[in-house]
Amino acid sequence: MSTSTSAQQPAVTVLGLGPMGRALAGAFLDAGVRTTVWNRTPGREQDLVARGAVAAASAQEAVAASALTVVCVVNYDAADAILRPDAVTAALKGRTLVNLTADTPDRARDTGAWAAAHGIRYLDGAIMTPTPSIGTPDAVFIHSGPEDLYREHRPVLDVLGGTHTHLGEDIGRAAAYDIALLDIFWTSMAGYAHALAVAKAEGVSARELTPFAQGIATILPPLFEEFAADVDSGSYSGRLNPLTSGASSMAHIIHASEAHGIEAALMRATEGLAQRAIAHGHGGDGFIRVAELLGRTAVPAGA
Amino acid sequence: MSTSTSAQQPAVTVLGLGPMGRALAGAFLDAGVRTTVWNRTPGREQDLVARGAVAAASAQEAVAASALTVVCVVNYDAADAILRPDAVTAALKGRTLVNLTADTPDRARDTGAWAAAHGIRYLDGAIMTPTPSIGTPDAVFIHSGPEDLYREHRPVLDVLGGTHTHLGEDIGRAAAYDIALLDIFWTSMAGYAHALAVAKAEGVSARELTPFAQGIATILPPLFEEFAADVDSGSYSGRLNPLTSGASSMAHIIHASEAHGIEAALMRATEGLAQRAIAHGHGGDGFIRVAELLGRTAVPAGA
Repeated sequence: MSTSTSAQQPAVTVLGLGPMGRALAGAFLDAGVRTTVWNRTPGREQDLVARGAVAAASAQEAVAASALTVVCVVNYDAADAILRPDAVTAALKGRTLVNLTADTPDRARDTGAWAAAHGIRYLDGAIMTPTPSIGTPDAVFIHSGPEDLYREHRPVLDVLGGTHTHLGEDIGRAAAYDIALLDIFWTSMAGYAHALAVAKAEGVSARELTPFAQGIATILPPLFEEFAADVDSGSYSGRLNPLTSGASSMAHIIHASEAHGIEAALMRATEGLAQRAIAHGHGGDGFIRVAELLGRTAVPAGA
Repeated sequence: MSTSTSAQQPAVTVLGLGPMGRALAGAFLDAGVRTTVWNRTPGREQDLVARGAVAAASAQEAVAASALTVVCVVNYDAADAILRPDAVTAALKGRTLVNLTADTPDRARDTGAWAAAHGIRYLDGAIMTPTPSIGTPDAVFIHSGPEDLYREHRPVLDVLGGTHTHLGEDIGRAAAYDIALLDIFWTSMAGYAHALAVAKAEGVSARELTPFAQGIATILPPLFEEFAADVDSGSYSGRLNPLTSGASSMAHIIHASEAHGIEAALMRATEGLAQRAIAHGHGGDGFIRVAELLGRTAVPAGA
């Protein structure tokens, strides 16, 4: 290790070297940040060490090397297995932990409580863009937890590229956004996968369909905005596209899919939501009435 | 009716004056096309007549007024009810019918056969953008059927704005694209509605979530392209995001949703697809392996 490292030079530890962890460590290295890395399964650090990273022999040694540790593993069970052994928890005391692992808001709040109990300065975050976005302007990071802690570490987080947003002091808030956004992402991807299967059965290749599928993605953002206003105001105008019309379209999709022997469980669930809203007398409303319908049974956080 | 109407002046009949039919007729009128309109339920033509449309007293009279009739109603049952009475079918003989009604490919093919049996020149199409796009550069139209017929009527269709694509001579092809694209659209919208319900239970308003939801929509087009290449080539690289990692994320969404008392049938269906692919030994593949899995039971069109 170079002795030229001063107290002012930022230093970061990255725990977890899956595809995202390696991308994060790589971005820190590219920015000249002194980067210590560790992964439960050895061998994943080699490329990073060749690029200047310091490989720690243990998680405890890794977190002791930097004032800021970033952890990004598959879920909080994996994060807990790394962070909660006594020696690691003790080594984190007085240091900052930024947890970019994806999981549920309740797990984030539990981790926040654990960190507070052990004198660990804690921020919870999530990454909303794919691995190749890291270090580029396309990356999107969201964070929650103490704002002063966020401000203190923002300069070093900024080298990961893209935009960083502090969503509030509630430590579970980034995970709440993450869950909701991944809900949109995975549901959309499942719809795309199903569409490709139906198209193929109709003799339409994925490449032929894709430019039009991309067109569908481009009409979503203005609709999202329009429907968000409906939901927050409690009005659900179906003037241009009533639920009854959407349900008719959904029935066509189910019929065409099943006629090809392709199961349509997702579209059956979607149509089921539309039909429930219609049965409740909302057939003239827009589709987004379904959000209100789903929320009728909801128990708020902390209730 | 003005006697200045020459044989060269384009003339169009629009059958069906729901929101989309009215938008189509309005775009024809704005372009100075002589436009005759008719709707099963009277009264919807009044604004259009004020803008210069001719209101026909019957569907038969309406189709007799123009060489080209455009029909856009809720589904092919509704279209058949208008077009297949003997007097209307007879009036369409030798004329061109462009059916922009959305339904299934088999219904489009059936209508193509009916048109051929009655000497009606027939194109089947679909509109892939919302009503307000009509007459603007954002509109997206797809067409299938005889290419010479498409070329003949393309100039008058062009006044509807946007882009028009002829997908092939198979009359069912536009409906096949339409079904696949609406599959993506409605599944994505259902994911968005569900996400808004979960976000609200977490104290996050629709307006707060929306800019990030829009960010999710913007990451879809490059992923669609990447995954389309995977599907067409039969390779399903999960290098950056294996199915096992996606399934973990889906389990978090289900847990967080149901912990709030919000049913998660869509995400359960999505996770079910991922778990089936994993059970088939594809856990290291990317999510789009699911498209291949869904297609394994598929019966091709016409088989």
